[in-house]
Amino acid sequence: MSHLNLLVGGPTSGWPEQLTAGKVSGDWIGVDRGTLRLLKMGITPLVAIGDFDSLSADELHQVKTAVSDIRQAIPEKDETDTELAVTVALKEFQYDRLDIYGATGGRLDHFLANLWLVLKPRYRDFAPQIRFIDQTNTITFFLPGDYTIKKEADKKYLAFIPLEKVDGLTLVDEKYTLDHENVPYPISYASNEFVGETGQFSFESGLLAVIQSKD
Amino acid sequence: MSHLNLLVGGPTSGWPEQLTAGKVSGDWIGVDRGTLRLLKMGITPLVAIGDFDSLSADELHQVKTAVSDIRQAIPEKDETDTELAVTVALKEFQYDRLDIYGATGGRLDHFLANLWLVLKPRYRDFAPQIRFIDQTNTITFFLPGDYTIKKEADKKYLAFIPLEKVDGLTLVDEKYTLDHENVPYPISYASNEFVGETGQFSFESGLLAVIQSKD
Repeated sequence: MSHLNLLVGGPTSGWPEQLTAGKVSGDWIGVDRGTLRLLKMGITPLVAIGDFDSLSADELHQVKTAVSDIRQAIPEKDETDTELAVTVALKEFQYDRLDIYGATGGRLDHFLANLWLVLKPRYRDFAPQIRFIDQTNTITFFLPGDYTIKKEADKKYLAFIPLEKVDGLTLVDEKYTLDHENVPYPISYASNEFVGETGQFSFESGLLAVIQSKD
Repeated sequence: MSHLNLLVGGPTSGWPEQLTAGKVSGDWIGVDRGTLRLLKMGITPLVAIGDFDSLSADELHQVKTAVSDIRQAIPEKDETDTELAVTVALKEFQYDRLDIYGATGGRLDHFLANLWLVLKPRYRDFAPQIRFIDQTNTITFFLPGDYTIKKEADKKYLAFIPLEKVDGLTLVDEKYTLDHENVPYPISYASNEFVGETGQFSFESGLLAVIQSKD
């Protein structure tokens, strides 16, 4: 399993501890201000993505000096920076997994654009490879199937979140169970919990997010 | 126009300045830890909602002594605390508008449950009366129609966010326009801007969120 990390430009206050402490291993891509933040942590990203129009001339110079592969999303293709990063990471570089940091906190229009990226037909198949990580949440995505997931040691709550119409949602062994529930529109089944160290669930159609979180 | 404020239990770091400064006028409802935070600010809410199981015995005593009207959501009705608060505010007390604070930051399963409340059939008609306010975002909701909205002085960005399939989305005079766009699934059209002091838009079906935000 090879994995790549992506840092987008959300507030550093939302970062998980291990990122603030510089303890996230692996290669990086930076988006916009995320690139500058990586450089400041002594990390040179493989690729920098963005128009960098929020950076000063000095900051832009730093980015251009340090990073050899700089790219811009094509607005005409209705593509966001994060989407281009997903394409580069999972399609071009063919990493198995992409962990996205810096996507929460601050502007909610950005968060929702990032969260819903997996609903777009051209990214849908990549959903299971994408993970969002912040201080209190880990978001993963699932296509129809039967799954057993592991509890993260530092998280308490478990949420099942149909991002669209989902049929046959079954929560087998969680604190609150469901039996072939047909969910007609997005719902966040929040505040569920693992009973043991794993949780089993299945569904027949649609796209499901799972969030493990703590207070 | 009468309005009621609702404080739910998200982290205080997400509160807008005017709330931290105690300068939000009007009556209040508190949900769970939100109730305790209101009392600490010298505000006695009309109603306190929640099971308060995250409060200490002392804190619970404070709430019970101060607030005469305490209620609990009915999990069997698949009702969340915030949903009960919306029912009390807009249906029972018939306020014209409900401003919700404390719903962002921290746990994303809670945020999404709150954001999507308006998609539930029994809350859908209340959508235009509900507003979420935090440090960097104001979220409002619209049912199909033709609208002109005003720019908030401290906000820079404007986002149009179909929460479900939306037909005929037209952005008339914003920085980026759309002409009768049919949106098949949730999308966050982020980082748009007002050109002047108002913005005109319309759509024919579905439910639309609009977010004004700043960096």
